[in-house]
Amino acid sequence: MSSTLTDELKNRRPENVKILCQLLSIPSVSADPQCADSLHQAAATLSELFQIAGTGWSCEVVPTAGYPIVWARYRALGNRRRAIVYGHYDVQPADPLDLWTTPPFEPTLRDGKIYARGATDDKGQMLTHILSALAWMKTAGQLPIDLDYIIEGEEEVGSENLERFLAEHRDELKADVAVISDTSQYAPGWPAITTGLRGIFACEVRVHGPRKDLHSGVFGGAIPNPIRELTRLLSLLHNEHNEVQVPGFYADVVPLTDADRAGFAELPFDQDAFLAETGAIGLRGEAGFTPLEQRWARPTLEFNGIYGGYTGPGPKTIVPASATAKITCRLVANQNPDVLMKSLEVFLRSQLHPSCRLEFTADHGCPAFLMDRQSPFLQAASKAIEAGFGKAPVFIREGGSIPVVATFKRLLEIDTLLLGWGQNTDNLHSPDEHFSIEDFHRGTLASAILWEELAKV
Amino acid sequence: MSSTLTDELKNRRPENVKILCQLLSIPSVSADPQCADSLHQAAATLSELFQIAGTGWSCEVVPTAGYPIVWARYRALGNRRRAIVYGHYDVQPADPLDLWTTPPFEPTLRDGKIYARGATDDKGQMLTHILSALAWMKTAGQLPIDLDYIIEGEEEVGSENLERFLAEHRDELKADVAVISDTSQYAPGWPAITTGLRGIFACEVRVHGPRKDLHSGVFGGAIPNPIRELTRLLSLLHNEHNEVQVPGFYADVVPLTDADRAGFAELPFDQDAFLAETGAIGLRGEAGFTPLEQRWARPTLEFNGIYGGYTGPGPKTIVPASATAKITCRLVANQNPDVLMKSLEVFLRSQLHPSCRLEFTADHGCPAFLMDRQSPFLQAASKAIEAGFGKAPVFIREGGSIPVVATFKRLLEIDTLLLGWGQNTDNLHSPDEHFSIEDFHRGTLASAILWEELAKV
Repeated sequence: MSSTLTDELKNRRPENVKILCQLLSIPSVSADPQCADSLHQAAATLSELFQIAGTGWSCEVVPTAGYPIVWARYRALGNRRRAIVYGHYDVQPADPLDLWTTPPFEPTLRDGKIYARGATDDKGQMLTHILSALAWMKTAGQLPIDLDYIIEGEEEVGSENLERFLAEHRDELKADVAVISDTSQYAPGWPAITTGLRGIFACEVRVHGPRKDLHSGVFGGAIPNPIRELTRLLSLLHNEHNEVQVPGFYADVVPLTDADRAGFAELPFDQDAFLAETGAIGLRGEAGFTPLEQRWARPTLEFNGIYGGYTGPGPKTIVPASATAKITCRLVANQNPDVLMKSLEVFLRSQLHPSCRLEFTADHGCPAFLMDRQSPFLQAASKAIEAGFGKAPVFIREGGSIPVVATFKRLLEIDTLLLGWGQNTDNLHSPDEHFSIEDFHRGTLASAILWEELAKV
Repeated sequence: MSSTLTDELKNRRPENVKILCQLLSIPSVSADPQCADSLHQAAATLSELFQIAGTGWSCEVVPTAGYPIVWARYRALGNRRRAIVYGHYDVQPADPLDLWTTPPFEPTLRDGKIYARGATDDKGQMLTHILSALAWMKTAGQLPIDLDYIIEGEEEVGSENLERFLAEHRDELKADVAVISDTSQYAPGWPAITTGLRGIFACEVRVHGPRKDLHSGVFGGAIPNPIRELTRLLSLLHNEHNEVQVPGFYADVVPLTDADRAGFAELPFDQDAFLAETGAIGLRGEAGFTPLEQRWARPTLEFNGIYGGYTGPGPKTIVPASATAKITCRLVANQNPDVLMKSLEVFLRSQLHPSCRLEFTADHGCPAFLMDRQSPFLQAASKAIEAGFGKAPVFIREGGSIPVVATFKRLLEIDTLLLGWGQNTDNLHSPDEHFSIEDFHRGTLASAILWEELAKV
């Protein structure tokens, strides 16, 4: 990259922080209907930023059934590559307000960090990719890659209108790769690329016994107890090695490579600190895997809730009518949520005692995401981060799901580069959310270099 | 028994029904504070009945912290035996009122039955034992047995003040046997003596995992899930033969004799009707025992409630902090509730995975009751019922507990004759409660004969 661009980014630092503060001072809380005007204001502010970009740029604030999507496009003759940049301008609610050191929508600099709701999630991180493009335009008059920015205002409330937008504009959104900065570095000084996300499916299992709650003295001993049957069924789902016992559950799992495992093993992981953070007195994970592997790269079957019979204070002598469990499975690459949800149902039905009835309710599913470690786009991003942060990134994964990544894969058939500039400790979704100013500038630099590296692929 | 007494009872029928109706017209609902005056009125009405009895009688309305206990005593020189008659003058609430054919506190005769709240439970049944004594006094001027009537007003709300009364008057309440008519015949035309009640203990088991609910994507796979651990522990408590697996659970059980089993087997039991009544699609009881044996004479471990994690609509992706189960065990003769509750706790703790903590909360316990089939008092009661109902009674048991029976055994060291004049179908605790007038008169006759038969023992 040209030293002119590097210098430009250095010079623009005060101006970039000013733009960030302007955006952070808008209380664009998507969950709060009283903030509706602020959400439109945030979208308009972003749109204005793109207006100043110059030749080749266009920007549209696209209405949806909810809050609008800011869709900015850059096109230049001769560019071979195109990337989609996804981000969101809405933020989490700020309460409890009294736990904030300074007001959530009065951005404040303290100890090298900017404190405000949305500082890291996602205004600060998302903005780096806009500011990097503006610097390119200012110094080179052009960008080496075509870009589509899709910045929505409903991420914190379920992105209900995003998928329809993507489906409607599918043909216009052809691209080589997507870029999102809405994750974190592994730890301070450990820049990271998230190369995998787990998928998920959710379901509810209800066992029915008698028609209504019965007197346990009069009927107990002869009539089936649905709590007993449900707990018996659930106990069949794991073995003593904490392996899931649904037939075929692991059949399609992409195994961890030696390189994956070696990479995870190099990451600092403090088990005592992890336990202290969770308050659990011990670990309990699938035998043969480390905690990071268990959380990032292995599927799970987790009980999220259970209820049945009497749940108030003291005893009540009944045989209950039914008992219900809520189950989610986290999936890894190549596992099919629909197939496995059916396998779970078939297995439970095959084990059911004939004195009880079983009701199975399927809920949403989403496949896992795993980036090919040999992908040239991944290598390009790695170079950009090394240049921007002064240290090569580690490859990490996340145990949760980011639905838009699966949607990009399904609808647009592209992978997503998850480039986290923030830290896990930035108080996302909590009071005193913040973002390191240094990471903000490093991220902007890495983003500027990324456009060049992606263009070279 | 003298034909004079039999004639007297026949002649008194209209008068006895009138007394019953007078008592039934008092809305003595112990659960309703607005009925307080009625409860005192019911106690006073009973007291007045005893005032007319004559020589040898005394009656006291004993105040308690709640509603008073009517304590009537009959003493005569030369009587060798003494019985305690227990009953209660309070009744269940009558709502829903719109489901009553005639108002609950306006006793109405229809089809040979008297309809009113308390008709069978327990005003009608209890009254037979007073009316039988009044007939003895009228015809013979004396009774062949000493009697203590203890009629409380808090049975439907937990008998909180009864035990203190019994403990305080323990020395004055020395007796050979107790008599209660607050159960039922086995079926119409099947007069019965209930010779066994199951005991009970109740407890709560809570498994703790992490300190608070955790994100199942970020933490799931490495952190213990307390619902999984609870359901695993609960699944260890029964085997496939529906036998309880707590070590020593059956050690002290008094086995069913051949005579017990033969007696139960002679009773009509319609399995299809039983299933239809409960709405269950199949039975599930301890292998090797019939449904009546399972419900009357075998101990059980029953799950009454379970809860943990998210129980609202839809999915929630958490590893919950804890999960809780409510357990009651029904016990049979010779099983010790305290010992078995401890055995259950010790067993669960021995099976607990070290990544979880277990909290065990013990609640109340009460031993089972089993009458010696060779007891001469039981034979005396059998003769009285055969004479009163024209058919020998069958010996049945109940799966539930009647705490006062255990209290009589523990404090006064006496057995209780459970002589049910009513039917299971009399709508106890439901709208349109009723009592057959014929059973009312038969019960009164059986009671009159009982005093003579018990005196002969």
